[in-house]
Amino acid sequence: MKILENGSVTSPQGFKAAGVTAGLKQSGKADLAMVFSETECVAAGAFTQNAFAAAPVNFCRVVLKNPIHHGVVINSGIANACTGDQGEEDAIKMAIATAKAVSGDDEFKYDESQFFVSSTGRIGPFLPMDIVEPGIINAAKNLSEDAGITAAEAIMTTDTVPKYMAVEVEIGGKTVTIGGMTKGSGMINPEMKGKYATMLAYLTTDAKVEKEFLQWCLDMTLDHSFNRITVDGDTSTNDTYLAFANGLADNEILTFDNRVSEEATTFLEAMRHLSAELARKMVMDGEGATKFVEIVVKGAESRDDAKICAEVIANSLLCKTAWFGGDPNWGRIIDTAGYSGVRINTRKTELFYNDLRVFAGGLDAGVAEQDQFNEINQDSFVITLDLHVDNGEYTVWTCDLSYDYVKINAEYHT
Amino acid sequence: MKILENGSVTSPQGFKAAGVTAGLKQSGKADLAMVFSETECVAAGAFTQNAFAAAPVNFCRVVLKNPIHHGVVINSGIANACTGDQGEEDAIKMAIATAKAVSGDDEFKYDESQFFVSSTGRIGPFLPMDIVEPGIINAAKNLSEDAGITAAEAIMTTDTVPKYMAVEVEIGGKTVTIGGMTKGSGMINPEMKGKYATMLAYLTTDAKVEKEFLQWCLDMTLDHSFNRITVDGDTSTNDTYLAFANGLADNEILTFDNRVSEEATTFLEAMRHLSAELARKMVMDGEGATKFVEIVVKGAESRDDAKICAEVIANSLLCKTAWFGGDPNWGRIIDTAGYSGVRINTRKTELFYNDLRVFAGGLDAGVAEQDQFNEINQDSFVITLDLHVDNGEYTVWTCDLSYDYVKINAEYHT
Repeated sequence: MKILENGSVTSPQGFKAAGVTAGLKQSGKADLAMVFSETECVAAGAFTQNAFAAAPVNFCRVVLKNPIHHGVVINSGIANACTGDQGEEDAIKMAIATAKAVSGDDEFKYDESQFFVSSTGRIGPFLPMDIVEPGIINAAKNLSEDAGITAAEAIMTTDTVPKYMAVEVEIGGKTVTIGGMTKGSGMINPEMKGKYATMLAYLTTDAKVEKEFLQWCLDMTLDHSFNRITVDGDTSTNDTYLAFANGLADNEILTFDNRVSEEATTFLEAMRHLSAELARKMVMDGEGATKFVEIVVKGAESRDDAKICAEVIANSLLCKTAWFGGDPNWGRIIDTAGYSGVRINTRKTELFYNDLRVFAGGLDAGVAEQDQFNEINQDSFVITLDLHVDNGEYTVWTCDLSYDYVKINAEYHT
Repeated sequence: MKILENGSVTSPQGFKAAGVTAGLKQSGKADLAMVFSETECVAAGAFTQNAFAAAPVNFCRVVLKNPIHHGVVINSGIANACTGDQGEEDAIKMAIATAKAVSGDDEFKYDESQFFVSSTGRIGPFLPMDIVEPGIINAAKNLSEDAGITAAEAIMTTDTVPKYMAVEVEIGGKTVTIGGMTKGSGMINPEMKGKYATMLAYLTTDAKVEKEFLQWCLDMTLDHSFNRITVDGDTSTNDTYLAFANGLADNEILTFDNRVSEEATTFLEAMRHLSAELARKMVMDGEGATKFVEIVVKGAESRDDAKICAEVIANSLLCKTAWFGGDPNWGRIIDTAGYSGVRINTRKTELFYNDLRVFAGGLDAGVAEQDQFNEINQDSFVITLDLHVDNGEYTVWTCDLSYDYVKINAEYHT
């Protein structure tokens, strides 16, 4: 697997993108992105399970059932959530405008059933369609194979850096590329189909794949990437994860029935790596985050128990602020595990900061505080909690909680 | 019901208290408290459900089964949690030392089975018994009817103010007094017997009551006071709620069998009011809190659903920081309700800031932002969410999340 320098959603053959300023953000920054493939794509997706799922999410769920797609249009600044019937209509209008804009003179080349739409930003306001529609026309005009990073910038809200990446693998003698972009740094603990994913994530690939296989890969990658992350435990109304494959790499088609083949495995591993790295980037850009923390809970009665325990620790304010402060106070982690409700062998439980065992047999393991301090004062560290009950294991990626998280969220008001 | 000026645990007849400096806190502040009644008491209690319940909690659970009690000794600075067998022994030693110290010359007057012990502070370290035991002797010497507030000060950790109160009621022609003190401002979302309570709360009364009746009252008051509060969603290893009644008011004894009598109801109401006010004081002293927020969820499918939804909102970082920032961003509350997992009639849901309806029919209710701002920029306000499913209702008291919460918890290291 090769990581492409400055790789993005436009790295795979046949994908163009754009990022333009429609005028939705008061800051005047880019706020409308488009990803487009002239060649027909199959698409896969997963969406938020929030009861107040936004209009664009409802639209995507319907559109995903279609066999053929050509891209997605995304605005930042306004979420088009809690916007009722008008919101639903506006989401459809975004798709219609996109289909029309990319059709150009050939009016009936594309239709709205082939495009996804996403929105991110403030919940409540209606989309000002008199701004959005010209923005879409402008984005279509600016579609380019060089604009993958520009598109990643246009979907940012409180993100401090655009998040994009691409990898290249050989599949049956053909070079296959997978690119991706994500946004999200707060309201991050997205849950899709009972799993977790990012607020907004888009993957593109020139691999030739069956739709069913792509959906299977997407589900599998969720489990090893976006399902693992939490910044603040809040699940958004707009979480969307989409993947597009246009087949231009001309490999022998990858199918669901043949999903255990070497070729299929190579593709899945590449997609998994890419999505995991994008998920990691999101946590590292977590609002106000100064540290990346991997939490591994093992020895739980089940995988579900391990997941509950790891997520409660990851979202504990007391743990998150201790990590920010660099306080090697393992008591807060043990306390949190203790109220998570899962079965624990309290007399055998062990806790590690990286490889350093700081708690064992229900007691402080006697490690000098300075040594503990050194482990958790790195930019990135691993906390491993062994509950000594059975073999359930789960990993979560999270970050610390700093003054800046409070600042960003107390002052955020697009 | 009369609120007594500067009322505390020593307001009821026959109760003495003390607060002294044993030397457990680096700051040199008072760190050891005692509450004592020479007259025999019946006692009631509730404790944390944390799997890593601290040694003093384990000790209290056993002691509570005894019919007769005389008081409690409490240290702050060290939690005596995750301290294994030595911790259990130290908890017993605290009770033995207390019994001996208050017995004075009459060595066998009291024994350790009549005293409760509590600890609060850092998890992990062992109690330095060579400091604690002389502290207990000193506390016993300083027991006084005037030291109720001093005792409330000695149990503080990150609390900024001592929390104490007393009320007086007439029961069958006799004057009955109930006093109380609490501590706790972080790691506050205590769960006892499947309910919620404060980290440390102690009630005293001179009412004559049956033990079973007192326990019933304590359980009932949990439901209307400590069960309602959350600062940060973290449940401690040491949560303890104890009540003592010594009967000196000489009222006709209140019994469980006669718990619906007018007298019993008067007592329960007084205890409920006192515990609710103490719970409120705790939230108002929540670490870094600048606002008191009452969250009422109604129209839920069940009381449990309403509780889940209210608690998820109360603990949402995005909601808490918005309240701190004074941002009338109802989208964060609606989003949080949406992922709480409870049934919601999304097209009928209504949200109120105090009496102002800001969200209705799945949409912004069209209230001017300045009017919304005015409601949530008060020191105390009520958020009411009507899910329009059924009649389930629940109320939670919480606070906002400020820079100071992060500061206190990133730097807290006793």
